[in-house]
Amino acid sequence: MSATEKVSLTSPILDYLQSLHQSFASITDGKVATYIPELGKANPDWFGICLVTATGNVYEVGDSQQPFTIQSISKPFVYGLALEDHGRSHVLSKVSAEPTGDAFNSISLEPGTGRPRNPMINAGAIATTALIEGKSAATRQRRLLEMFGLYAGREVALDEAVYRSESETGHRNRAIGHMLRNFDILTSDPIPSVELYFQQCSVSVTARDLGIMAATLANRGINPVTGKQAIRGEYVESVLSVMGSCGMYDYAGEWMYKIGMPAKSGVSGGILAVLPGQLGIGVFSPLLDARGNSVRGISVCDAISRHCDLHLLNRQSAGRSAIRLKFTGAEVGSNRVRTPAEARTLSQLGRGIKVFQLQGNLTFTTTEAIVRAVLDDVDTIEFLILDFKRVQTINESACRLLYLVLDKLAEVGKPVLFAHTSRLLLIRRYFKLKLGDRFEQRFHAFEDNDLALEWCEDQVLEKAQARRPASAAVSFADYELFENFTEAELKAMSELLQRRSHRAGEVIINAGDPASEIYFLAQGSVSVFTSPDIETRKRLATFSAGMVFGEMAAIDRAPRSAMIVADSEVVCDVLSLEDFERLDSTNPGIKIKLLQNLSLGLCRRLRVANRKLSVYD
Amino acid sequence: MSATEKVSLTSPILDYLQSLHQSFASITDGKVATYIPELGKANPDWFGICLVTATGNVYEVGDSQQPFTIQSISKPFVYGLALEDHGRSHVLSKVSAEPTGDAFNSISLEPGTGRPRNPMINAGAIATTALIEGKSAATRQRRLLEMFGLYAGREVALDEAVYRSESETGHRNRAIGHMLRNFDILTSDPIPSVELYFQQCSVSVTARDLGIMAATLANRGINPVTGKQAIRGEYVESVLSVMGSCGMYDYAGEWMYKIGMPAKSGVSGGILAVLPGQLGIGVFSPLLDARGNSVRGISVCDAISRHCDLHLLNRQSAGRSAIRLKFTGAEVGSNRVRTPAEARTLSQLGRGIKVFQLQGNLTFTTTEAIVRAVLDDVDTIEFLILDFKRVQTINESACRLLYLVLDKLAEVGKPVLFAHTSRLLLIRRYFKLKLGDRFEQRFHAFEDNDLALEWCEDQVLEKAQARRPASAAVSFADYELFENFTEAELKAMSELLQRRSHRAGEVIINAGDPASEIYFLAQGSVSVFTSPDIETRKRLATFSAGMVFGEMAAIDRAPRSAMIVADSEVVCDVLSLEDFERLDSTNPGIKIKLLQNLSLGLCRRLRVANRKLSVYD
Repeated sequence: MSATEKVSLTSPILDYLQSLHQSFASITDGKVATYIPELGKANPDWFGICLVTATGNVYEVGDSQQPFTIQSISKPFVYGLALEDHGRSHVLSKVSAEPTGDAFNSISLEPGTGRPRNPMINAGAIATTALIEGKSAATRQRRLLEMFGLYAGREVALDEAVYRSESETGHRNRAIGHMLRNFDILTSDPIPSVELYFQQCSVSVTARDLGIMAATLANRGINPVTGKQAIRGEYVESVLSVMGSCGMYDYAGEWMYKIGMPAKSGVSGGILAVLPGQLGIGVFSPLLDARGNSVRGISVCDAISRHCDLHLLNRQSAGRSAIRLKFTGAEVGSNRVRTPAEARTLSQLGRGIKVFQLQGNLTFTTTEAIVRAVLDDVDTIEFLILDFKRVQTINESACRLLYLVLDKLAEVGKPVLFAHTSRLLLIRRYFKLKLGDRFEQRFHAFEDNDLALEWCEDQVLEKAQARRPASAAVSFADYELFENFTEAELKAMSELLQRRSHRAGEVIINAGDPASEIYFLAQGSVSVFTSPDIETRKRLATFSAGMVFGEMAAIDRAPRSAMIVADSEVVCDVLSLEDFERLDSTNPGIKIKLLQNLSLGLCRRLRVANRKLSVYD
Repeated sequence: MSATEKVSLTSPILDYLQSLHQSFASITDGKVATYIPELGKANPDWFGICLVTATGNVYEVGDSQQPFTIQSISKPFVYGLALEDHGRSHVLSKVSAEPTGDAFNSISLEPGTGRPRNPMINAGAIATTALIEGKSAATRQRRLLEMFGLYAGREVALDEAVYRSESETGHRNRAIGHMLRNFDILTSDPIPSVELYFQQCSVSVTARDLGIMAATLANRGINPVTGKQAIRGEYVESVLSVMGSCGMYDYAGEWMYKIGMPAKSGVSGGILAVLPGQLGIGVFSPLLDARGNSVRGISVCDAISRHCDLHLLNRQSAGRSAIRLKFTGAEVGSNRVRTPAEARTLSQLGRGIKVFQLQGNLTFTTTEAIVRAVLDDVDTIEFLILDFKRVQTINESACRLLYLVLDKLAEVGKPVLFAHTSRLLLIRRYFKLKLGDRFEQRFHAFEDNDLALEWCEDQVLEKAQARRPASAAVSFADYELFENFTEAELKAMSELLQRRSHRAGEVIINAGDPASEIYFLAQGSVSVFTSPDIETRKRLATFSAGMVFGEMAAIDRAPRSAMIVADSEVVCDVLSLEDFERLDSTNPGIKIKLLQNLSLGLCRRLRVANRKLSVYD
């Protein structure tokens, strides 16, 4: 088939959910809840499944967009808002976090304090709802709806009929409210909070909403579809903890054992399950078992967990996954082209420059592996470069470990360089806080690994007294391409070369230009860049005095492949391609020497490139 | 400081544990347990901490090697052995997995069935111990000790004094045994199982042992220090589940909420905590709180969890971490050196060859991101190469998703190639099972990405009718280095070349040999390898008829850097370096053309290498 023919394939994950839907649709066990009369109107055939990854890919099948009221699934979300309003310790002083092994409507207050055992039973949820801040009932309701909207990624509203039905029949919950008032868990009139509780239970959602809400918790509070933050990341673990220990009523232990995902169910038939860092699941089917959990919902979650091996506690060791690549400055050098003498020095002493390319999420555990690898190598490290280009996130405990490594290496005179950290604000903030006055001196930050390598190479060359001064102009006889030339040959060449000057920053060659000249660099340095955009451009090479540039296009007659810019005041001697070619007949001896030196330069660069490739590949 | 000076730095993680030890050693709250008289002899000052990563790095401070009896911490491990002996459903029929919110010595049997609520309370643990297989009491005891030895990574033994003390005072546990017999949870004399229970509680361990045992559970059952399997991986999630919901007695909910790691404590003062996939912690300090948990142990675990951000439910999204790199065959080609015409074709049509380099642990979630990326690109994919070189593990659900991708792409005529899968036995087994007769035809497995790329390139070139037949011999005039040569120049060269033949597999050039010749390949192909070892060697290049090889060393006079082997029957024309040099004076026109063509070849290879580098770096 041709590459241009449009093909669209359904995802195998969607196919899989479809097959689950088909096989579990035939389950008709269970009963639609009737204790709130309005819920009894649900169609027992409704059945929707939605799986959403923590990266925001949504897979949904069946009646995934059928609205229903959220009921008890609201509890963990309101609990999260209470944590944001009051902090963990105050909330824990009002509602404990112990599973009861009891049913959802059990009162389960702690003897003595009257503290509800956990926020997933009604008593705990009413105490939680009472904590939601707001000057008026309307404000409190609006805040709840806004919060649900952030999680679901759309505006949500109350189902007024269900709310009225709940309120009309909610005597037991009013009794709980007064009991909580009796124990001073609620400190004012309980009735408005009980009403707000009825309202939160009556928010209208779909299985798709539940899937996205679950994925938001899986993504540490950021809705992966909209990118908006629904809850501060630090509270997500608490919300998931109460779901994990108490979310499925008196089925919580077995649920965690078999299915292994923090979850919450509601009597309208929804189940929401979260695999932190990975995905969320929303299922809706109103047929309930005796414990009040959706029969098909449990079957679906159980099947997905088993088939896809999703149990939270079934984990492979991540191993050394934070270290993408390790190499030395002798294997991979900076893109500054070194003289043959410098290159020889670096091929030995460059071994003391160690580069660790890091990747993924840096946490205590992944960073421990980095620390261990650094300390294992410490004898051979003179300079340590940590390259964060592919690091997605870093947390404070990872910063602390890296800071301690820097501190220890600084004690023994080994600098640590940081490349590509500008995106990762926490690193800079953490190191500034810790280093104080010593920050500028000790926190060596570089735009990229290439510049960090160059800095280390310069240090190594300085110390070995092998560095050619960057500013020095070279004489004609020093051009690498004139190696082995006689005085007469040098003189002949001098007549062909045309001297030019460029200011710092001036573009000497543009990408796409036809190649018509070869440049001999007499003074200053020039750099080759991929693109003219100073933000995104990447340095491909830097040449210094004595070197030739622009010769490749002269050989293969391809248009210029990159742009070349003067780094400083630059003086060049320019040879036109016509003159270069004419040498075939006018002075073949010179031409042979030029070509030989030119081939030698290409050979060296090819060997450098091949050595880098053997490291990277 | 010099690179050769020996430096040894203590790990910051060890420093950190030391500081924790120091600050918590001053806590003297709590009491040493006395209900087993022998336990009362413990020194209240004993305090050891050990943290072990799932990769097997052990960090230990204080009295980490002080022996004590394991007590209730034995329960999850014996539960694991019962699962191995009988499977999950039989074990669940004897002992449930619901938290009770009750104290450790509560009897908590399920009404009706008499099933203990969970295996972490004494009743559940005795029922579990009764499930341990073995013909005699001695065999059963030996099996338990062997199991603990695998987890701890050393031989462990009973503390006989504690065992006698337990047995002499264990009347309540005998009562529980008889009660379990009454409900037919135990089906034979309960007393031997109660004795075995006393023995399991009396196994002598250290905080270091607990750390390694915890890390073994964190590493899915494989002791990361010894590499030996202590429990089948599939049962680890169940062991951790009961620890998570019931491991800390009536403190389990709050523990999970605050500390977020499945854990188990014992009345001798040990606590063991597991962060799956990451690390294990063992703490020992015999001062207990009212619930029977070690006071310092809880403080240490709480501090480590907070400082190091270890809560199980606090996770960043792994994102697209399974895709290390994505590129096309137009950006990175195989190491078969193509003719300029072939290279031009591939620079266009190579775009249809898509390579995904994968990494890390392939699970449902990480593989979903791969599947999504493939399907998003499906229109532009002609060939898909999945490179598993850096994949650590793969599970069955990942295999299933990859199989479904292969199946869908096969339907629309797009082959999927697998590179570097030989280590990952599950892939091959899974695909064989699924593909049956079609396995050979559809499962394209390649040793490495390079060979997979070459195969795709050949297909692309065949289809575009742009492939030079591999077997064809070329005439003199076809040598790339003789481009633009006149008849007379060809004749002059022919007099300098010496024809040689090599059998398939013959080594033509050895690494380290001095360079004395340039080779023109008339027939067959040769490959350049890093090493002579056929198992580990990597192909650096393959040249075919018409091409030159061995020319780089001729230019820079370096010894041969790699070995060159005949892939097939090979015919070469060989030019000695003496003759090559003599051309400077005898036929400078030819020398210039040779050098020009040679530089052109080097230029092309340098551009190819630079393009690859821009992808890899």
